[in-house]
Amino acid sequence: MQQYTAKLNPEGLKSKYKEVRQHSQTICKPLEVEDYVVQPVVDISPPKWHLGHTTWFFETFILKPYSSGYVAFNEQYDYVFNSYYESLGARVVRTDRGNLSRPSVTDIYQYRAYVDRHMDSFLKSALLPLDVITVLELGLNHEQQHQELLYSDIKYILGHNPLFPVYQPDTVFIERNKTNTEFIKVQGGIYEIGFKGEGFCFDNELNRHKIYLEDYQIAVETVTNQDYLLFMLDGGYTNFKYWHSEGWEWVRQSGARAPLYWHYIDQKWMNYTLSGLHEIDPAKSVCHVNFYEAAAYAAWKGMRLPTEAEWEVASSEINWGERWEWTNSAYLPYPGFKKADGAIGEYNGKFMINQTVLRGASVATPKGHSRNTYRNFFHPHHKWQFMGIRLAR
Amino acid sequence: MQQYTAKLNPEGLKSKYKEVRQHSQTICKPLEVEDYVVQPVVDISPPKWHLGHTTWFFETFILKPYSSGYVAFNEQYDYVFNSYYESLGARVVRTDRGNLSRPSVTDIYQYRAYVDRHMDSFLKSALLPLDVITVLELGLNHEQQHQELLYSDIKYILGHNPLFPVYQPDTVFIERNKTNTEFIKVQGGIYEIGFKGEGFCFDNELNRHKIYLEDYQIAVETVTNQDYLLFMLDGGYTNFKYWHSEGWEWVRQSGARAPLYWHYIDQKWMNYTLSGLHEIDPAKSVCHVNFYEAAAYAAWKGMRLPTEAEWEVASSEINWGERWEWTNSAYLPYPGFKKADGAIGEYNGKFMINQTVLRGASVATPKGHSRNTYRNFFHPHHKWQFMGIRLAR
Amino acid sequence: MQQYTAKLNPEGLKSKYKEVRQHSQTICKPLEVEDYVVQPVVDISPPKWHLGHTTWFFETFILKPYSSGYVAFNEQYDYVFNSYYESLGARVVRTDRGNLSRPSVTDIYQYRAYVDRHMDSFLKSALLPLDVITVLELGLNHEQQHQELLYSDIKYILGHNPLFPVYQPDTVFIERNKTNTEFIKVQGGIYEIGFKGEGFCFDNELNRHKIYLEDYQIAVETVTNQDYLLFMLDGGYTNFKYWHSEGWEWVRQSGARAPLYWHYIDQKWMNYTLSGLHEIDPAKSVCHVNFYEAAAYAAWKGMRLPTEAEWEVASSEINWGERWEWTNSAYLPYPGFKKADGAIGEYNGKFMINQTVLRGASVATPKGHSRNTYRNFFHPHHKWQFMGIRLAR
Amino acid sequence: MQQYTAKLNPEGLKSKYKEVRQHSQTICKPLEVEDYVVQPVVDISPPKWHLGHTTWFFETFILKPYSSGYVAFNEQYDYVFNSYYESLGARVVRTDRGNLSRPSVTDIYQYRAYVDRHMDSFLKSALLPLDVITVLELGLNHEQQHQELLYSDIKYILGHNPLFPVYQPDTVFIERNKTNTEFIKVQGGIYEIGFKGEGFCFDNELNRHKIYLEDYQIAVETVTNQDYLLFMLDGGYTNFKYWHSEGWEWVRQSGARAPLYWHYIDQKWMNYTLSGLHEIDPAKSVCHVNFYEAAAYAAWKGMRLPTEAEWEVASSEINWGERWEWTNSAYLPYPGFKKADGAIGEYNGKFMINQTVLRGASVATPKGHSRNTYRNFFHPHHKWQFMGIRLAR
Repeated sequence: MQQYTAKLNPEGLKSKYKEVRQHSQTICKPLEVEDYVVQPVVDISPPKWHLGHTTWFFETFILKPYSSGYVAFNEQYDYVFNSYYESLGARVVRTDRGNLSRPSVTDIYQYRAYVDRHMDSFLKSALLPLDVITVLELGLNHEQQHQELLYSDIKYILGHNPLFPVYQPDTVFIERNKTNTEFIKVQGGIYEIGFKGEGFCFDNELNRHKIYLEDYQIAVETVTNQDYLLFMLDGGYTNFKYWHSEGWEWVRQSGARAPLYWHYIDQKWMNYTLSGLHEIDPAKSVCHVNFYEAAAYAAWKGMRLPTEAEWEVASSEINWGERWEWTNSAYLPYPGFKKADGAIGEYNGKFMINQTVLRGASVATPKGHSRNTYRNFFHPHHKWQFMGIRLAR
Repeated sequence: MQQYTAKLNPEGLKSKYKEVRQHSQTICKPLEVEDYVVQPVVDISPPKWHLGHTTWFFETFILKPYSSGYVAFNEQYDYVFNSYYESLGARVVRTDRGNLSRPSVTDIYQYRAYVDRHMDSFLKSALLPLDVITVLELGLNHEQQHQELLYSDIKYILGHNPLFPVYQPDTVFIERNKTNTEFIKVQGGIYEIGFKGEGFCFDNELNRHKIYLEDYQIAVETVTNQDYLLFMLDGGYTNFKYWHSEGWEWVRQSGARAPLYWHYIDQKWMNYTLSGLHEIDPAKSVCHVNFYEAAAYAAWKGMRLPTEAEWEVASSEINWGERWEWTNSAYLPYPGFKKADGAIGEYNGKFMINQTVLRGASVATPKGHSRNTYRNFFHPHHKWQFMGIRLAR
Repeated sequence: MQQYTAKLNPEGLKSKYKEVRQHSQTICKPLEVEDYVVQPVVDISPPKWHLGHTTWFFETFILKPYSSGYVAFNEQYDYVFNSYYESLGARVVRTDRGNLSRPSVTDIYQYRAYVDRHMDSFLKSALLPLDVITVLELGLNHEQQHQELLYSDIKYILGHNPLFPVYQPDTVFIERNKTNTEFIKVQGGIYEIGFKGEGFCFDNELNRHKIYLEDYQIAVETVTNQDYLLFMLDGGYTNFKYWHSEGWEWVRQSGARAPLYWHYIDQKWMNYTLSGLHEIDPAKSVCHVNFYEAAAYAAWKGMRLPTEAEWEVASSEINWGERWEWTNSAYLPYPGFKKADGAIGEYNGKFMINQTVLRGASVATPKGHSRNTYRNFFHPHHKWQFMGIRLAR
Repeated sequence: MQQYTAKLNPEGLKSKYKEVRQHSQTICKPLEVEDYVVQPVVDISPPKWHLGHTTWFFETFILKPYSSGYVAFNEQYDYVFNSYYESLGARVVRTDRGNLSRPSVTDIYQYRAYVDRHMDSFLKSALLPLDVITVLELGLNHEQQHQELLYSDIKYILGHNPLFPVYQPDTVFIERNKTNTEFIKVQGGIYEIGFKGEGFCFDNELNRHKIYLEDYQIAVETVTNQDYLLFMLDGGYTNFKYWHSEGWEWVRQSGARAPLYWHYIDQKWMNYTLSGLHEIDPAKSVCHVNFYEAAAYAAWKGMRLPTEAEWEVASSEINWGERWEWTNSAYLPYPGFKKADGAIGEYNGKFMINQTVLRGASVATPKGHSRNTYRNFFHPHHKWQFMGIRLAR
């Protein structure tokens, strides 16, 4: 896997383990038991699946191979909680996750407690070999990725219920008003992108390498709800010329006319958030748009989306962190990219086709999990993550 | 709707109401909260939906129109719990029932308590008009139909979980061994079929009318697991000549090789039941076969399935009541059949195309809900009900 | 197969063979080569396929088994022209028929000439065994069925082309004006239906058997375009209450608002016919409606469709022969029905599920191919045959 | 559209017009009428559609706007022959192209003759404005693209017919044996890619721009049939680890085990070519593999596919021109890419998502239509073009 130097000493790792593991459960605290179970569409996983799957990761890649004498909590969980690791055998097909009422939520919390107890003993035990530290750190980052998915999947589950149940009455994510409409100018030339330094990174952020950029400009802020509303009012969804061919097909088939979670009720655009339905706030960043919409918006403005290299090079001069930002870059390997051996090698490389890179981080990204070399990726039609738009020209 | 004379006096109806309503909850008692929520395939409904929908029936067709001053428990439940009544407006599409985590199970039990409380006051109130008695009796029979569905849907939900959870450790349904292989001979001539008498019947059992039958023979018992296993061992699933063209297509696409819930494990045929996986009991009636399988089995035996008229005419001389028995009759109106006006008229008539009649009753049918004129109906490929086979020739 | 006495002497059969075989080619005469090739939807077969398949029938069931020394025209045609006979091995899947540019039209006419030449020698040769006469007569009736399909498939191919090409400028089918709105009264009692007599019939018309009918009335004429237009104008396609549940679903998904081939152009309802687009003729029988539409129309009139037994019993007193008339009877075996052994046994029995019986004949039915016991059958959603509506009450 | 200086004087353009237009018809000469009509899968277009569509291009973009008094051959052809230009209104949906028997092949040749006659007069007429020259040159390049599609679509149509008809008995495309297994070394640094010079290029080849490359090696020859067979024999299609996740899914669903047109017959791998079935020639370049197969092959070799920039920079030192070569580059705009206004602007830009770049040219590419900056693009699962593999490391 990735070449890196462990940033954390064993003590640091142990406390980070507790903190990360706890955070997943904190996110789920406001849920009813029923909310843990459903899977309205294939891309969403039931919250109980996320809780089980992240636990299975530590059991499978640390306790089973390295903790001698460890007895699995339930041998059949391999089948239930494997996500996509072909090397690890059969698994529940993704579309069936929401069809399983068992293991129950109680079972899964017991599973978490069991694995955490064993991890605790194991981490205390002795000197951890480098391999274990590597996988442990990957496991914690993996769980943090699922924490963001927990937020977006919970929002999808509640936000697609006709009763619009509230996750938490208070505002869940505080966001800045966006008023700066400036663009930063970047001069063409050779730059370096990719991870550099001492901490953790995913394999897809390596190798750090040179690229050549032309002169470009990039917006300081992401596009606001107000901006996007103007696009909608100007017929953005009914004029094919702003759209990719696939995007136009998507508009036709989906009937989309607004970002996800926007509802036109009593002459007003309302927005379902984790704290319920509220009127659109014009000064906040638009959220839950897909790549087709992001690209169409940019075309309507006579501009374009930045490439991921342009984004990274300018990252210190722009405000980012509230939205995953669609780039116009396909998700492809960097020069010198190598897949790790074994199941861990299935983490990133095999998805490098037909997906698009998003840069930045979002309000739902756990603290300490973001950096300017992070390469998030989704299919262009996805919009259920906290995704937004930044313009370039 | 049906012409009938109320069998029950108001007191009888009140106590029947309590008894029927309670039974639905008794069936659900062994469930975990999570089991109430899922919908593994479109034909299955989540148990919480059954509990809500049967309650909505009384609220919609009795309390709202007849109980003055009644305030709905939640106006949005109309949208959530309407099953297929076009006259009553928009509704959650059937495939989405399992995507709704709310209303929660607790909410639904509160809904039931609320409606039952109001029904109790209402039933006590005064003389019930005939219209109300009619709908009340229909509502109770409707809930009894859903009680059978609760059993079959719960079995499907648990029986398709890779952990094979047990609903109840003790045997849920006691069944007789079948050893009698005789056939009853019935002489041709004019007979009458259809409901006659004083109690309740569905509109599809009317009018009682004459039919002409040729001489025929019909088996005293339904086909056993042992019988069916011989068909399987003789290559029944691999020889097209026993099958309808559609049935053969179904075999090819589904890959079916046995009744639903049969699993070949360690050289033995095991059967998932509500009390868990057990070895096939050869002397019990085969269960969970669809029409294609029933007809193919009969063809392999050189016989055929009875028509529904043949079944009804012989019903007093054969043993029935453990399985819904596939007939070779399409579900069509009897002479003089009339749809009731309004939403109640959508109960049966609009389904009279492309479905096949099953006669009898099953181990899961509530007591007091079966009679020899009852016309159950399903699509020919369905097998998740407690369905079996009776031969004729 | 069917029990029957050969109506035709060998000489009669020989001349009938020539006449029937010639008629298929006469129907195709107005076609361009390209028209022989396409298959716009799965139910339609390319005309060249019909010409080849009917020829293959004689080659496969007569020449190969009975004409010693016969050498197949092309061994691969078995694969290309088998329609659905499972006993005869692999075949081009139905949806692929329109994907095959070869054999060319010229090849197929040569194939026909080759088989006809050999059939001619064979028929001249000597005494024909009863088996051969039986299959020969079936083959001729089979080809006549495909002649009707040729008309309906050609109409579909040309009628779904945006250029609306004309098959033949002159009227192809002469039809009577319908003005009689009377109903015939039939008294209840025991009747017999099913084939009786000396000529040919299909196995599904046997056994002749007794049935009991209640009193009923049946219209002398089929429903006219004018009648049907009133249904359309009265919102027939937008009120669910006239429709079966499946039918309403069909309306929603198909967006249907009129019979097939009706086009609303410049404020007029136009009708594509084999002689091109013409204004609707109000006094002619409505054509190209499916079962759902037929049943909805009858419900709107407060009446119903006849059963097939009612139709047959009244057949001598009503005017029929211009439209295949939807009945409210499912396609099921008559008492005593037996499938023939071997491939011939696949002709009818295996389709006896989920299809609906049509009675009568149509303007496209070849002369000498109709009788009042004939049981045609299609799926309820089909409307590309020359299908119409007769009312009963 | 593209900035360029016309390479051809008007006389040159006129003779090029004749030559290009004639070549399309030459390709179709060996076809039967029926071969012009069919469309076995959505990606293939019927040859008669290609002949009509390329003609419609000149009629729509030159004769109608610029040749005063021009009368369209048939106004409805707009609907029939528009491929994807949203700006130009409704059109036959792509899947329906093979359902149209008319216009006939004769009609389309008349259409071509009519448009060619008018183009001839028009080109002779006077000074051509720059706009016309631009569109004319685009139209000729467009027709050349369809010439390559004619070859691949004809091969698909004949090669998927169970009779394996031969297009032309003599070898259609002469190819070199590949024996050189060397790799060229290219030193890292800044390079320029994109079109430069005076002739025609597509808009997607602009702007020429700098890129930075790391050191790399690229094979002199493309992968041979022999090479690929070793991958197959080594279980390449059964080991997920060589495949992208999507690619593995494709393997599972398609059941693919070899390149398109390979058939294992009598213990030998046979290859359908335009001259019929022949045994695989081990020294020739493998053909008809998709991106997933190309990438899996490279992974199995422990190497990778080149990027399009690596390919272009090395293009003068490698042997190319027999296969379109899959790169590991997504089809994205070059810096400064601009869409032209109007319908012409729909040519390339709107397809820049979820497609993969192929470089080079193939045996089916018309003479004069290839250059080392040409960016061909297809979806990763496509394999019916003359596509091959080149390794990099």
